[in-house]
Amino acid sequence: MSKLPHITTSIFTVMSKMAAEYNAINLSQGFPNFPVDERLSDILARLAKENVHQYTPMAGYPPLMNKIANLVQSSYNRIINPDLELLVTAGATQGIFTSILALVKTGDEVVILDPSYDSYESPVLLCNAKPVRVTLNDDYTPNWESIEKACSSKTKMIIINNPHNPTGKILTENDFLALEKLLSKYPEIIVLSDEVYEYITFEERHISAHTKDFLRNRCIMISSFGKSFHITGWKIGYVVAPEYLMKEIKKVHQFLVFSVNSISQAAISEYLDVVDVNLLGKFYQEKRDYFQKLLQNSRFDLKPCEGTYFQVASYATISDEDDIAFCKKLIIDHGVAAIPISTFYSDNKDQRLIRFCFAKDDFTLESAAKKICNI
Amino acid sequence: MSKLPHITTSIFTVMSKMAAEYNAINLSQGFPNFPVDERLSDILARLAKENVHQYTPMAGYPPLMNKIANLVQSSYNRIINPDLELLVTAGATQGIFTSILALVKTGDEVVILDPSYDSYESPVLLCNAKPVRVTLNDDYTPNWESIEKACSSKTKMIIINNPHNPTGKILTENDFLALEKLLSKYPEIIVLSDEVYEYITFEERHISAHTKDFLRNRCIMISSFGKSFHITGWKIGYVVAPEYLMKEIKKVHQFLVFSVNSISQAAISEYLDVVDVNLLGKFYQEKRDYFQKLLQNSRFDLKPCEGTYFQVASYATISDEDDIAFCKKLIIDHGVAAIPISTFYSDNKDQRLIRFCFAKDDFTLESAAKKICNI
Ligand SMILES: CSCCC(=O)C(=O)O
Ligand SMILES: CSCCC(=O)C(=O)O
Repeated sequence: MSKLPHITTSIFTVMSKMAAEYNAINLSQGFPNFPVDERLSDILARLAKENVHQYTPMAGYPPLMNKIANLVQSSYNRIINPDLELLVTAGATQGIFTSILALVKTGDEVVILDPSYDSYESPVLLCNAKPVRVTLNDDYTPNWESIEKACSSKTKMIIINNPHNPTGKILTENDFLALEKLLSKYPEIIVLSDEVYEYITFEERHISAHTKDFLRNRCIMISSFGKSFHITGWKIGYVVAPEYLMKEIKKVHQFLVFSVNSISQAAISEYLDVVDVNLLGKFYQEKRDYFQKLLQNSRFDLKPCEGTYFQVASYATISDEDDIAFCKKLIIDHGVAAIPISTFYSDNKDQRLIRFCFAKDDFTLESAAKKICNI
Repeated sequence: MSKLPHITTSIFTVMSKMAAEYNAINLSQGFPNFPVDERLSDILARLAKENVHQYTPMAGYPPLMNKIANLVQSSYNRIINPDLELLVTAGATQGIFTSILALVKTGDEVVILDPSYDSYESPVLLCNAKPVRVTLNDDYTPNWESIEKACSSKTKMIIINNPHNPTGKILTENDFLALEKLLSKYPEIIVLSDEVYEYITFEERHISAHTKDFLRNRCIMISSFGKSFHITGWKIGYVVAPEYLMKEIKKVHQFLVFSVNSISQAAISEYLDVVDVNLLGKFYQEKRDYFQKLLQNSRFDLKPCEGTYFQVASYATISDEDDIAFCKKLIIDHGVAAIPISTFYSDNKDQRLIRFCFAKDDFTLESAAKKICNI
């Protein structure tokens, strides 16, 4: 019997593969299609000839760890100790998996919002623990009453994702007030805050868990250079956690992967000296605005997008098909690939919604928009 | 309570760190100190400017997967289907961890030989399963009688490591006959064969699990380019397993890391066109022979080494200290770092044995030998 009997090929794999097969424009799986910053590829090319090919220390390449600590400080005015509170991981996914595996035990419960990115539930199940899904409000804000109802003495962890994939929603001060109130009743609950899109926010910057004192000693913050530097293939992310949690996370990391790709760590470390992450929001805001403008005359109804590089769209006025069938038709008949939102729901709730990734060059967005507007 | 209460900083981290602190020659943690093949760094430098920076498919970069299948076929005359039987991992460690996590369940037992590399036991414990340690014979051959006694209907997996770290021992035809006989009595047992040093063998080539028909449908074979191409920092390994096991391993991999560093995969893929892995054995055999010759007049008693880049040495005639204390003194007083063999034993059995890594340039081996011969 399988330990993950319900798991099939992920929707991202399915849609990217199908997009390739039908030669469709791939706005499904979230990854940029434009070149990386030349400064970064130049650094990597130079480092290829240098002495960066052997194991880095287990928790990360020391210069990179110091730069990450600086980045967190300059972004959020939060001082972390890289030796005790930081771990470099093979992408955010490995950070999430390792943190859950290190801390969640048989019989524990973990609150996961619904809809959610697909990486949270399986590690919980592999711990013989129970994912407790709590549906977001219709406007994709967390329903704190329902979350509180879902909590009990069994609850080990609440997972938040801010900015939120796929809805692009960011948490407000009121959300954090509600979270603080909730946590004050449950001293044992840990928060895992997946902030991989932390620098991809638009009208307002998201509120990072880093900035909240009440989370300082009970929050695991996950981020990823894949999203921030347009290098999803490099698989370099990081985890920030208080020492007593990080100690446990490192124990699992040591046997799960030991250390992480050295050349990528060294390149990112140097790149952090020259890159300005604060330009990223503007960069993607322009893409979002351009994509929304291009789709203005389409029959899709575009939902608000506060962060991430995803645009949710309703096709309710176009078709009555379920969103998976609609996405397949979109590829086959119209040459554009998207992600059905139902796949982010634990019960696969279909609301005639799909997700487009707009992390694409203008030509791709224009070509896709032309096809989408023809529907 | 910790899920891995007994885990402390790994001996490899401790010794490498101490070597750096005391400016000692580091023959402890296993990694080469010479430059990588220029052909490989040239490929990497060129690829840095190309379009290889986004997610590869989940199971691996397709060109690399085909090349690995070719490598397995040319090395062992074994045909594998890369789509169904192969997974590229973030190093062998991730392959081992993922395989165990995917297949071992609460209450299962896993046979692990003693001494063993330190990566096998923790993933078993994280599955709420039981590691059953079976001590090797005094000449480091497996004791098949004891292994058979350790097996029961609860046994899910037997882990072998061939060539064996730290002893450099390779399994014989008789070992495989004994294994076959044993497995015929236990149709449910899976073998995990860690062969990361598969190309680092000397007088005799090791017998890979790939070549044994009786293992075809019940063996997970793990390897690593880190060892074969002198790039331990790249963290690219792979897993070969029959489809029904690979399906489960991929399910966990998808959530554990999703995919693996794209640029490294692309570079290794091209390098496999030009490199001859069969030269590796000769390369390290010369290092072993040179290192042994350099230590000829030392007071250490060198043990036989059939494969890997590790030399086990007894200091019984030199000191009565336990091997951890001896290794610390070796660093502080004599400027050479090694690994105490007791740390590979579940009961930390001390036999006055230490392990030197000879994957070093000649100058380093000579400098280290001078210090060692002065003891
Ligand atoms: C790891 S594939 C999925 C990429 C992603 O973050 C998304 O498309 O939501
Ligand atoms: C991952 S650090 C240990 C390296 C190694 O394989 C060894 O020294 O045995």
